[in-house]
Amino acid sequence: MSKQMQCHGGQMGIFGCRFSLYPMDSDFVPIILGALEKTDTSAVWSASDALSTVYRGGLDNVVDAVAALLLNAWREDCHMVLEGQFSEGCPGDVTADLPKSLDPSCPNRESIGEIHFPVSCKLALYPMGTKDYMPLILQVKGMAEEHGLRLNHIHYATRVDGDVQQVFSYLEAVCKLSREHASHYALHFTISMNSPTEE
Amino acid sequence: MSKQMQCHGGQMGIFGCRFSLYPMDSDFVPIILGALEKTDTSAVWSASDALSTVYRGGLDNVVDAVAALLLNAWREDCHMVLEGQFSEGCPGDVTADLPKSLDPSCPNRESIGEIHFPVSCKLALYPMGTKDYMPLILQVKGMAEEHGLRLNHIHYATRVDGDVQQVFSYLEAVCKLSREHASHYALHFTISMNSPTEE
Repeated sequence: MSKQMQCHGGQMGIFGCRFSLYPMDSDFVPIILGALEKTDTSAVWSASDALSTVYRGGLDNVVDAVAALLLNAWREDCHMVLEGQFSEGCPGDVTADLPKSLDPSCPNRESIGEIHFPVSCKLALYPMGTKDYMPLILQVKGMAEEHGLRLNHIHYATRVDGDVQQVFSYLEAVCKLSREHASHYALHFTISMNSPTEE
Repeated sequence: MSKQMQCHGGQMGIFGCRFSLYPMDSDFVPIILGALEKTDTSAVWSASDALSTVYRGGLDNVVDAVAALLLNAWREDCHMVLEGQFSEGCPGDVTADLPKSLDPSCPNRESIGEIHFPVSCKLALYPMGTKDYMPLILQVKGMAEEHGLRLNHIHYATRVDGDVQQVFSYLEAVCKLSREHASHYALHFTISMNSPTEE
């Protein structure tokens, strides 16, 4: 994290995603690096370490970049998982490590908008700092089917299955609803592609 | 989730972990299945789907089983990641899908206690239902060095590096502290082994 912190305190509008891509393939390094390089990160601030990568910026631009990363990584014959956490409004956050603008520009949208394949996703939403957080979590579960996704209740998480574009559209809608109800929230998600497990 | 729900409502004492193992190896299926089979799950309730596995039971027994899963999976030449979430006290939880007893028995402890290797771990703690959650998060960061771990502050998470036994001992201590301060909490963690990334 930058040592040049301009001021402390969570602010709505500074949105981020910490994520990791796991290709279940012995040739994983070029798959990960290739996807990172192919993704247009001009609208986000980014940093990587050995465990994960973080994108920070406006909500639309961060979701655009994370979706592009996954869509750029996908290949027909490879089981791959993207683990991530969207977060906004943490009281410990700083107004540093940001792109030039938080305005929506979504530079990847055109190149990725027509790519479709099925995924499975589990998610867990944490609206922080409020006693009354369960209604939002239940509302979010209810939204999955409106987005064309199949919903399953599982312990500690919600599972949705459907097209990759619908899953990202749903995750984005969950964040946009959550920012209206909580000054700080986190949404953990795991998206799996080409799993060989039959259910 | 079981349809035979005996009653609703989160209770401290019913602890769980949903986790996934990601071997970055084209031969990932036998690595995952081998580790699951080698782990003694007699003290937990477990269920698997295409995305993840869940263990439920008493805190000590669930941590024992998850640690064993990772230690049983480890091999010298394979980059592998375990993603998981510990959780306790969710108001939507049920008093079903449980082992016979929540009493500590830790059947894997003897077989795994002497295995050591270095890991990197990132974690994010969510104490729910309280406005005053930041002091606990800061206290938990401070505990990392007491457990012999190197601490790094990163956006949206805390990173710790050290021996695998110390990391699990730390994660267990974080849960035991959190249950004293929050009626519901979740601890997300990602443990990476044999990463080829030099830092």
